[in-house]
Parts: sequence; structure tokens; C-alpha cells
Amino acid sequence: MNITYFNGAFLPKDEVKISPDDRGFLFADGIYEVVRWYEGFFYDIGSHLERMKRSLRELHINWNDSDQFPSIALDLIKKNGLDTQPAMVYIQITRGASKRSHNFPPDNIPLTVYAYAWGFKPDIVSQETGIKVMLKEDIRWSRCDIKSIALLANTLSFQEAFEKGLRECIFVRNGLITEGSHSNIFFVIDETLYTHPESSHILSGISRKNILRIAREAGIKTIEEAIDENMLKFTREAFIANTSAEATPVTEIGGITIGDGTPGTVTKLIIERFHAELGLLKG
Amino acid sequence: MNITYFNGAFLPKDEVKISPDDRGFLFADGIYEVVRWYEGFFYDIGSHLERMKRSLRELHINWNDSDQFPSIALDLIKKNGLDTQPAMVYIQITRGASKRSHNFPPDNIPLTVYAYAWGFKPDIVSQETGIKVMLKEDIRWSRCDIKSIALLANTLSFQEAFEKGLRECIFVRNGLITEGSHSNIFFVIDETLYTHPESSHILSGISRKNILRIAREAGIKTIEEAIDENMLKFTREAFIANTSAEATPVTEIGGITIGDGTPGTVTKLIIERFHAELGLLKG
Repeated sequence: MNITYFNGAFLPKDEVKISPDDRGFLFADGIYEVVRWYEGFFYDIGSHLERMKRSLRELHINWNDSDQFPSIALDLIKKNGLDTQPAMVYIQITRGASKRSHNFPPDNIPLTVYAYAWGFKPDIVSQETGIKVMLKEDIRWSRCDIKSIALLANTLSFQEAFEKGLRECIFVRNGLITEGSHSNIFFVIDETLYTHPESSHILSGISRKNILRIAREAGIKTIEEAIDENMLKFTREAFIANTSAEATPVTEIGGITIGDGTPGTVTKLIIERFHAELGLLKG
Repeated sequence: MNITYFNGAFLPKDEVKISPDDRGFLFADGIYEVVRWYEGFFYDIGSHLERMKRSLRELHINWNDSDQFPSIALDLIKKNGLDTQPAMVYIQITRGASKRSHNFPPDNIPLTVYAYAWGFKPDIVSQETGIKVMLKEDIRWSRCDIKSIALLANTLSFQEAFEKGLRECIFVRNGLITEGSHSNIFFVIDETLYTHPESSHILSGISRKNILRIAREAGIKTIEEAIDENMLKFTREAFIANTSAEATPVTEIGGITIGDGTPGTVTKLIIERFHAELGLLKG
């Protein structure tokens, strides 16, 4: 049975009833966060918590109990018997249920807080052999730094990639590569690691942040600068990063083969160091 | 008691249970439509139905029973005893409930169709005296032509206006005025009526369409062309249009007084003709 968290209680998913007045349902007026459980610990949940709080602040949603997220997440792992396997926890907070109106409801309307956990099978094959991805104009809004549930543009774009048998949709805005529909993207050009700088056009990924740190610690030069789509043919390596994919090599982007079409040296080094760090955390 | 429509049945709103897996709740993966009931008939419901079908098509949502919308709307009016008063009907269709994944669920997943009606008090005072509105950078996505429920940018922007005591937030994209957070906007310059052309940066309003027709029938020159925000000081008249506001004069935009700060002649003529047409429809 799937035990979820809903507004202060743990209950089977079947018993969760979202109101049709919920502003998450009517207006996409909410945020979410996803953390990964590595058979014993959550990966950098402190950063996820900080990002969640930032998203809430940006939307002026005041969840007083936001610091409870790590303990809710841990309870979901335990109550669902996921302790000893790879798993994920999803949490979503919306501005609550209220008569439909574009302006915010009164402050006394309770928020909707919903979270659930699921067992997760890491895609080791893709991480070893790499994936092919699509390239598409970024049709999203200009506040992609907020991890909001207004994900229609992301789903529409990813679906296009999915139908073509491609594994991610990478966005281009004004000629510059921003990020994927649910990942950040990195490039290696002249032995240097590039990724789009933090801005309102990308989500500041937790994996992104840790990969930049790992790369620097490994002596790799990193530059947070957007890559022009015309630079793709000069790109030696590429990889995407997110909570489920960690770092996963990209061997083809929008029909252009990256490097020799196999995962690159820098990419493999970063994945190796990422896993070595996890090994230390596992103890 | 509020009787709503939910997936084929009419039932009290309290009994409507949206799944937490609903893609409307998780991804804003759905569309909506609002029609107005004028004590005996819906205003141009044919155009609303066509627009609803277009929104569904653009999202590749296949609601086979979409032609039932007018009869569902009428049933909601009758079941809620709203026949003889001004009322509105809201309908929302989402891609249904399915395990969270950016790509679309299988075709056999049932859609979520939810509709409700409510008695409505037209804001006659604003229509006579005019409203003041805010001006703000358009942070929305680039598919504003789809009447999707991904309205977070709209709510955030409108809230800013609301907190300032202003009645709408008008968007500027690349220096050009597009539309409001939930209305289209018209301007009168040199006796000519201007409004943003149909494009992916505005929603093609049903009121907008009918007002353009009414203006032409009244011998007013109309040009569907975006107004540069720097032109506001040369604007003699302005009004917003949507299903609830019909045409409502705007006397101040972003602190700039429009004309002499009172509803203009062309605006008043259009409102008069709009009401005259309604009178004929009422019979």
C-alpha cells in the first residue's frame, strides 16, 4: 500500500482528496521538490530544503512547517518499507483551496501539502552508454528559477522528445542553450566544463551545484556561461544532470553527434567522483 | 448546494475528488473555458466551444465528448437554479490521473472533466467609471494562445496589481503591450481602435473578437497591431475586454492617465452597442 503524506497526516494515496478548488489544480499555484534516497540517506537534502524554501518565498507561500520536510521524507521512506532500496520522495505545496480568483486567497486558507515516496530503479545503462536528446526553442516562462508545478511547457516539450525516442528535450532561448525539460546540461569544450549560469532562465539544480564543486575539486576548469547552439559541433562532451540521472552522458543533441559519439573522459571522471562521494556517504 | 459536473456525473462539489496524481494538479496539464449566462442564453458559446476544442488540440488532449460542453453548461445552470440571473460556467479538462512522468500517459487513461456554475454580479460601476491598471513585464510562456491552466504567471502578476488597489495587470513584452492577466486590451489613438493581433503572445478572446466586429459595424476603423508602451501617453482611450468585464474602460495604465481620465467616446459607443446586441439576443 502506498502511504502518502497529506496535510499533516500519513494515509493511503487512495484516501487523498484534492479539492477541485485547489489552486494547484486551477492555477498551477504551487511548487515541488524531489529528493533521492540512497539506501540509507537522502542526497544533499539540505540544499533541496533551501531551494524549496526559496521557491515558496518567491511565490509568497508561507509554509511555517517547511523545516519538517526532511522528517516527512524519512517517515515516507520508512512507512513504505523503502529503507534498503533506491527511492525518491516528491513533495508539492500549493496555496490551498479557495473560490477561484486570480488574486491570492486570504492568509488563513490552509495550504495543501502532499508528499509521496516510491522505489526507484537507477538507469545505469544510460549512465554508461549515454543518451540522445532533442533541441527545441524554450517556450517556458521567464521564471524557470522557481521549481513551480506550472510544468505544461516542460511536459509538452519532453513529449516531443519522447515520441522521437529521444531521452530529454534541451531548450534554446535566443540562440543560447539553457537546460533540459527536467535536467541541467553541461558541455566540455577545450577541456573546460561549461553550464548555463544561474538565472531566471534555468532551475538551479542541486546535482548541478554538486557537479560543479566535484569538477573544481578534480582540477577541471569550470565556466558558468551559456553555450550558443552553433557551438554544439565544437563540443567534445556533454551530459545532463538531475536528481534521478545524477550525471548522464549525452552523445547526440538535435542530430549532432557530440565528440566521437561515446561518453567523454571528463564526463566519466565526474560520474566516477560523484559515485565515490556517494560511497563515502554510505560509509 | 453547489452541483458540479465531474467525469460524466452531476454531484455536489464536496463529493468531487481530484486525484493527487491528476496531471492538472502535478503539471498544469489541462485547459479551461469560461462562458457567461445572460439570464436566458450563453454569450457566443459557439466561439467558446471552438476555442476550447482548439486548446485541447494544441495539447493533444482528445476529449471525444467535447461537443457536450454547451449541454453540460446548461444543465449546471438549471440544476443550480441560476436560470434567471447572471451566471458563469467554468469547465476544466486535464489529461487525467497517472503515475507522475513528464511524457503523456497512455491513451486509455480517462481525462478529468470538471465544470461548475455560479451566480455572478456584473460590475456595472467599473463599466461606467472605468478602472486603473498596472503595467508589468510579461513573464508568461510563449503559448499564451492556449487557454491552459498553467496560470501561475497570471496569478502572480495580477496579485501585484491587486495589492496596489489596481484592477488588472497589463503585460509588456519586448516593449509592446500584449494583453492583461485575464483580459485583452484595446486602445483608441486618432479615432482608430487598436488591439494586439492574434499571436502566440495573447489569448484570442471571444469578447475581443465580438468587440472588433461591433466596432467595424459601427464604422470605427480597427487595426490589429501591438501598441508600444511609449505610445500610452498619446492614447486617447483604453478598455479591457473579457467574458465578465465585457468592455470596461481603463482610465489609467501604469500611472499614466489615459485621455482626460474618464471613459472615452469610442469606448462608450462600443459598450452601448454591445449591450444593445445583448438586448436583441434577450428578445
